[in-house]
Amino acid sequence: MVEEHRGKRHAQGSKSNVAQHPALRSVHDSMLDGLGQLADYFGFSKVMGQLYGTLLMHNGPLSLDELMERLDISKASVSMNMRSLELLGMVRQVWVRGRGGRRKFYEAETNFWQIITNILSGREMRDVERAITVMEENGARLMQCMAEMSAEDQATAQVYIERMAQMQIVFRFAQLVMTNILSQVSNTDVTQVSRIEIQ
Amino acid sequence: MVEEHRGKRHAQGSKSNVAQHPALRSVHDSMLDGLGQLADYFGFSKVMGQLYGTLLMHNGPLSLDELMERLDISKASVSMNMRSLELLGMVRQVWVRGRGGRRKFYEAETNFWQIITNILSGREMRDVERAITVMEENGARLMQCMAEMSAEDQATAQVYIERMAQMQIVFRFAQLVMTNILSQVSNTDVTQVSRIEIQ
Repeated sequence: MVEEHRGKRHAQGSKSNVAQHPALRSVHDSMLDGLGQLADYFGFSKVMGQLYGTLLMHNGPLSLDELMERLDISKASVSMNMRSLELLGMVRQVWVRGRGGRRKFYEAETNFWQIITNILSGREMRDVERAITVMEENGARLMQCMAEMSAEDQATAQVYIERMAQMQIVFRFAQLVMTNILSQVSNTDVTQVSRIEIQ
Repeated sequence: MVEEHRGKRHAQGSKSNVAQHPALRSVHDSMLDGLGQLADYFGFSKVMGQLYGTLLMHNGPLSLDELMERLDISKASVSMNMRSLELLGMVRQVWVRGRGGRRKFYEAETNFWQIITNILSGREMRDVERAITVMEENGARLMQCMAEMSAEDQATAQVYIERMAQMQIVFRFAQLVMTNILSQVSNTDVTQVSRIEIQ
């Protein structure tokens, strides 16, 4: 999604450096730090969280060069991590008119529900489905081999099958929670949610 | 929670090596691999997942030495990671009578709902609360300094305050989802859940 950037934010985007007042700088750094940790926590790279934070805590778009300077990381790392953020729908390209024609900038997606929806419905769902599939295949495989096993191995196979079956229930529950949250977040004013009923 | 281990599982726990049939070995390794990844994914150590997996995929308790041998890791690493697993309620000590008197063994907690409840209500809740507190404090701090800022810095502070307020709504939603899941998982037969209603 490439769109033209214009108006007030355009003007601010092409100038401004990092905030000057010490409180601004400190809040800025605290948010970058927190978002870096959050990204790391959810199995993304810390740099992804910091890049997203840099754009989020900036009023207007920034270029790859500006992001590189602000975080003091290599161009290659900026490019790679920005590509990952784009694929997750967390940042988007905008075009800003400057002296040398139109230049490519990025801005943060601030619709957090959209971001959560993208991540849950993409990566998380795939990972849960894959885990369930692996356990189903493992179970089926043990059932097939059962006849050719020693009595002791059969007892072990039985334990494996039981434990995997229990764990599959947990993953199916997680799948259901995500499916229901996804289908309802889009229809609900989440700021007004007071109750989540499990039936 | 230290309890006496007895009966059939005792006998099996004190002998058996890793499973013999190739399908058992392969399923065993696939589960350890998956649990290692899952642990890593949720910000725990991979070794914690593998230790838990080793106990889960074994019919009976294992000693620290046995765990060390099976995973080919240092005693220090086994001790440290087992302590973390104990604190999360994912493993527990059991005592097995042997030739040299009673010896300390461990077994996996197989009530996955209990584990999820422990993790959600402990670490996850604390982390979400801390994130909300940090953002509240950051916002309050900016409001206090607003008067002494330049017009440009005030505009930036306004952006920061807005973005943090939006993000706080997301964290409060996460908090609510967790609280509701926790209070209802304990009262619900989760294997029968078909619907989660957000109100």
